[in-house]
Parts: sequence; structure tokens; C-alpha cells
Amino acid sequence: MADAKACAGRVERLRALMAERGYDAVILRNNPDLRWLTGAERTFDDEVAHTAFVTADGQWLHTDSRYANTFRERLGADTPWVIDEEILSAAAWAAERARATRSRVVAVEDTCDLAFFDAFNQAMGELSIACLTPRMHSDICDLRMVKDAEEVELMRHAQSITDAAFTHICGFIKPGMTEQQIRVELENYMFNHGADSLAFGSIIATGANGANPHAQPGQTVVKRGDMIVMDYGAGYHDYKSDMTRTVCVGEPTDEQRHVYDVVRQAHEACAAAAKPGCIGSDIQDLAVKVISDAGYGDFFKHGLGHGVGIEIHENPNFGRRWNRPVPEGSVVTVEPGIYLPGNFGVRLEDFGLMTAEGFVPFTQSTHDLVCIDC
Amino acid sequence: MADAKACAGRVERLRALMAERGYDAVILRNNPDLRWLTGAERTFDDEVAHTAFVTADGQWLHTDSRYANTFRERLGADTPWVIDEEILSAAAWAAERARATRSRVVAVEDTCDLAFFDAFNQAMGELSIACLTPRMHSDICDLRMVKDAEEVELMRHAQSITDAAFTHICGFIKPGMTEQQIRVELENYMFNHGADSLAFGSIIATGANGANPHAQPGQTVVKRGDMIVMDYGAGYHDYKSDMTRTVCVGEPTDEQRHVYDVVRQAHEACAAAAKPGCIGSDIQDLAVKVISDAGYGDFFKHGLGHGVGIEIHENPNFGRRWNRPVPEGSVVTVEPGIYLPGNFGVRLEDFGLMTAEGFVPFTQSTHDLVCIDC
Repeated sequence: MADAKACAGRVERLRALMAERGYDAVILRNNPDLRWLTGAERTFDDEVAHTAFVTADGQWLHTDSRYANTFRERLGADTPWVIDEEILSAAAWAAERARATRSRVVAVEDTCDLAFFDAFNQAMGELSIACLTPRMHSDICDLRMVKDAEEVELMRHAQSITDAAFTHICGFIKPGMTEQQIRVELENYMFNHGADSLAFGSIIATGANGANPHAQPGQTVVKRGDMIVMDYGAGYHDYKSDMTRTVCVGEPTDEQRHVYDVVRQAHEACAAAAKPGCIGSDIQDLAVKVISDAGYGDFFKHGLGHGVGIEIHENPNFGRRWNRPVPEGSVVTVEPGIYLPGNFGVRLEDFGLMTAEGFVPFTQSTHDLVCIDC
Repeated sequence: MADAKACAGRVERLRALMAERGYDAVILRNNPDLRWLTGAERTFDDEVAHTAFVTADGQWLHTDSRYANTFRERLGADTPWVIDEEILSAAAWAAERARATRSRVVAVEDTCDLAFFDAFNQAMGELSIACLTPRMHSDICDLRMVKDAEEVELMRHAQSITDAAFTHICGFIKPGMTEQQIRVELENYMFNHGADSLAFGSIIATGANGANPHAQPGQTVVKRGDMIVMDYGAGYHDYKSDMTRTVCVGEPTDEQRHVYDVVRQAHEACAAAAKPGCIGSDIQDLAVKVISDAGYGDFFKHGLGHGVGIEIHENPNFGRRWNRPVPEGSVVTVEPGIYLPGNFGVRLEDFGLMTAEGFVPFTQSTHDLVCIDC
């Protein structure tokens, strides 16, 4: 279980922000934010079923009977959270909290959906009261950006499972297998070696499918001479790992080898340039430059990397629109790629910690092109 | 691939609704709605990366380079969708579409987040134009509620995999295994027998964990005498199945047997009562009555059932708040349960089609209590 003191510190940081902004209360509905704030591990799933209401001196969590007992087990008897499973819509519950606490400036995370926001305003109207509803835009994502020691250890451990799975799968792949067979073996290995969930649905894309960066594994058969893009990760106590390796089934052609080398060069240049305080988009620009200089500028269009934590995509990132510094203590990926439609794709991704000295990958797997014996 | 004619019919139904409401355009951001409307299968993942803009005579889909080629492959050359991968925020893109099409009543699904909605309004302001933004509240969910023949067949097939996995897992479970081991075997079996994804993270909850309806599988060891709740399903071409069975490891106590029988009685009473046109909450009330009459009213608090399709929870449902008719052609679950905190839980869930004659389950697994030999 997440350290109760660490979680108390997180609530205090939220309250400091509330005080600075003049918020009487905040409403939180985003599961990853709630996981981070409460420390309740392996409790949240995909359902938007929970609402927190936090004031300067109170913290309430509304949930339903499917989860309430799990929350009580996770948070223990001494928790400052008041767990409420009253059968009531989240909007009506939040309005009642606002009324009872006389909160008149109630900030709402802008990740919440319009349906909730409209219903909350309507419920306030039915109580004949009104409040200001400033939007919190990525504030809690920013608080979550710098990881503490426990979070770093969970991700380091998740990545060790991911690295071991790569070694295993390289000994497993043979021509004639389908993408789906490889995916099942890979995920099975991670579960059998300590993963308690997947970071996301694994991408296993062979041959021309590899040119679609977010291809889903299917019945395409691996052939000798194919490049296979494998992008996957483990979940461990709700924290994620993320890695991509591209392997060659047999010996690569000159073109495949060359494209791989360009991607590796871009990766290593960016990993070396990534220091605390660097501007995310500058590192993206560097990747674009290396790849464009090699003549492949039209074939790399996605972001270079992103933060990882409870979510697979967090702040900060190395993308065109992240023109802010990347802080020390953030956990990020570096993942350039080249995608030649109808032909093949290559991506090389590590993930790791932004330390005072620079980017230190958790990933231990080789950057050399692995060629599968066949 | 989803039938192009079926998908064209879906767009036409949306346009009929737009005409009736006086919408010039609608903006759609919700992946399951986009999957349904476009028919692009196995293309969408968890990322909110796509925006559709539909008018009476145009249909545009904004995505990014990670997905654009997959969309082109899935939709083919003759698609009426204009696929746009311009590097531009979704909000700015949608505002530009509204400008170019002179749309002044632009409906927005209220599943979209506040961040997008705020950014869209800001982008419109920057173009010095304004529009009305009526919210669409579950309109497309309602269109998706009645399934066509292809959708029904995909779910029937997904359930056949799920049933086979149940038979398999009953021969696999032994005292001393962890929940996690059982989960891995179960999911592995589904993938190896045609599932292309999971419907959701499988719930495998033994002993007292079974009293938490949405428990996540962990390292708890199965003991002789435990009840094990298993709630899981397969994904097939983006459509889901959903089933729960509770088994006993060895012979049940009288209490376990009795609780199981009450849940089964509630299940079968509700399945028999569920006819097209019935009010969802009436069926929920019936489940509550059967369980309360047996003295367990405090231990069943969740909804009785829900629609299934591209999403695991769709319209309609058998819940307290669904006071509308459940239509013929909808696909729903029936899943009462009893949860005795610190002791054990039981849930029994089938899913199937609401036909003119009533609820016909896809699920073929027995309602008898399965006792694992040990």
C-alpha cells in the first residue's frame, strides 16, 4: 500500500494550490488522480465511479457498493478520507457537499465530462445556490509529474519484468507464428513473472503492419525477413512500464539495417540531450532533425516521448506542444520511429528517470538490432 | 470489417436526429461511438485521439499519424469519411470545420471533457464566430442500443469463447493456486481460442475477496471450501462478452449452498421477467425483492444488469435509474449477487439478446453450482 505519509503530503500540496488560487473546494473525478491522492492501490478500474470533494479541512470520497469495502481495506481505519457509498448521483452528492461546507468557489478538473459538469450545475440550482467553477487544467497532472522514491521503485520493478519478457520473447519468435500468438506469450510471461496488469494492450506489428505506429496485433503471420515492432509494458501496483523494441526475423536487408541505425542514432542523441530543465519540444525537434537529415523526415510524425506513472501518458512530454521545462524527478519515454507505409516500421523506446545528471533509463535491454535465428 | 452499408445507415440515423433537432453539425469524440459510426474495427485504443465532425452532407474524421493509415486501410478508398491527419489540436480543427461549413448550431456529446469544450469555444472566439452548443446526452448511446445481426453474431461468438474458457478453468483450479494464476490461465485460454482482446480486466476473487464485487485478482491463495467469483469476458472485433460464475472448491457449506440458491433464484426470476418493453428498474426491483425476501437485502446493492456492445457498459440497463423500456434487439446482462463482508460472495451472470419472446442468453454455461474436485 502507498505510504500514508506520502499520500498526506499529496493532499497538502493540493491544499496549498487551493489556498493560492482561492478555491474553497475541489471536485476530482479522474481515477488516476484519485489513485495518486488516496494511495488506494489496485482498486480503480476503468469505471468513472468515484468522486472526491476536498476542502481546506475535509476530504470526502463518494463511491458505490462495488468498491466501498475495498477502499476501506486499502485506506485503513485511520484514514482522513470519509468514504461515502450513499446511493446518489455523483453530481447531486458533490452539490450537497458544496452546500454543507458552504463552498462558493468550487474548482473542477477539466478532465471531467460535460455531463457531470452540467448535472452539478443543475443540482446546485435545485439547492438554490450557486458557485464559481474555475477549471483546473492539468494542475494535478503537474503535481503528479515529479515522482517520489516509492513510485520510482514500482516503475523500475515493472520495467525489470518488461526487460525479462523481451529476452524471453526473442527466444520464442519463429517464422509462421501470428502476431497474436506472440502477444499472448509475451503478456503471459509478464503475468507469470509478477506483473499484476498490463500497461496497455501490447502492440506486436510485423512487416507492413509495423508502419502503423498503433497497430493492434492480429492474424498476420511473421515471415523470414520481417521487422517486428513490439511496444508493451507491465503494470505493477497501478504503475506502468513502457518499452519498444524492433527485431528482425533473420538477417536484415541493407535498408532495414540503415533505418534501424537512424532510429537508434535519433534515440541516443535525444537521450543524451535530455537534462532536467530542458524544453520538451527542443528534444522533439532534435529527433526530427536527426531523422530528417537522414532523409526520413516524412516518416516520423508522432511525439518523441511522454511521461509515465499511474497512466501510460502523463506529463511532461517531448512533443511539439510541450514548451515547458522537463523537471528532475519526472519519468519519461524516448521513442523515435520511422514508418515506411506498405513496407516496415522501426521504433526504439526506453523509459526512465530524469535525474540531476540527465535521463537514466530503467530499460536494460540492448539497443543493438536483435536478429532472430531462423 | 463492419458492413459499409450498415455503417452508412448509422450515419443516416444520426443525420435524421440532427435534422429533427435543428443541428447544423455534431462533434463526436467518444471512441466507442466513432467505432460504431465508422465501422473501423480494431483501430481504436484507450486514447482520445480522434474527432468526427458530421453535417447534413459531409463527414470528416480528424486523427493523427499513429492511426491515419490504419483508418485508410479499414475504411477503404470509397469511404465517405474524409480522413484528416493535420497536426492541429482537436478543438482548433473542429472550430475550423464549423467555420468552413458555416455551422452555427453545433451539438457536442456530453461525454466529451471540459478541456475540449472550453478549448473549442476559445478557438471559435479566435475566429470571431460563435455557435450554439447543445449537448447530446446519450443520444448516440441510444442509437447504439438496438443491435444489428452482425453485432449480435460478434457477441454470440465472443460468448462461445467465454463459455469454453469456463469449462477449461473448472478443470484447472486447485487449492493452493493464487487468484492471479487462475486469471492468467483463463485469459490465456481466451486468447488462444480466438479472443482478440479482453472485455475488461478479469475478476477472480476467492473467499472473502469475493465479497468485494469489483475485486482485482491478487496473490490470495485458493483454499478448499472457498467460493470463487469469476467475472470476465472476451473481446472479438471490438465487441464484448460478459459472464460471471461462482464455483466452490470442494463441497459447499449449507450457508454457501443456500446463498447460491437465492442468487440463482433471483437470476432466473429476473431473466424470465425481462421482456421487450419492460421497465429496467422494475426488473432490478424484482431482484431486490427475491433477495430481500430471503433475508439478504443488505448484501445486494449494485445494479442488476447492463447493456453490452462495443463497451462493456451500454444502454439500456436493469438499474434503479433506468425507468425507460428495455427495447427488443438490445443485448443485456442479468447479474444479481450476494456479498457477505469478510466471508464470501456469490454472483451469477448471463448475457444475451432481448428478443420478442424475452431474454435469450448467449451464455450456455450451467446455472448449477460447480464444485471443483479436490
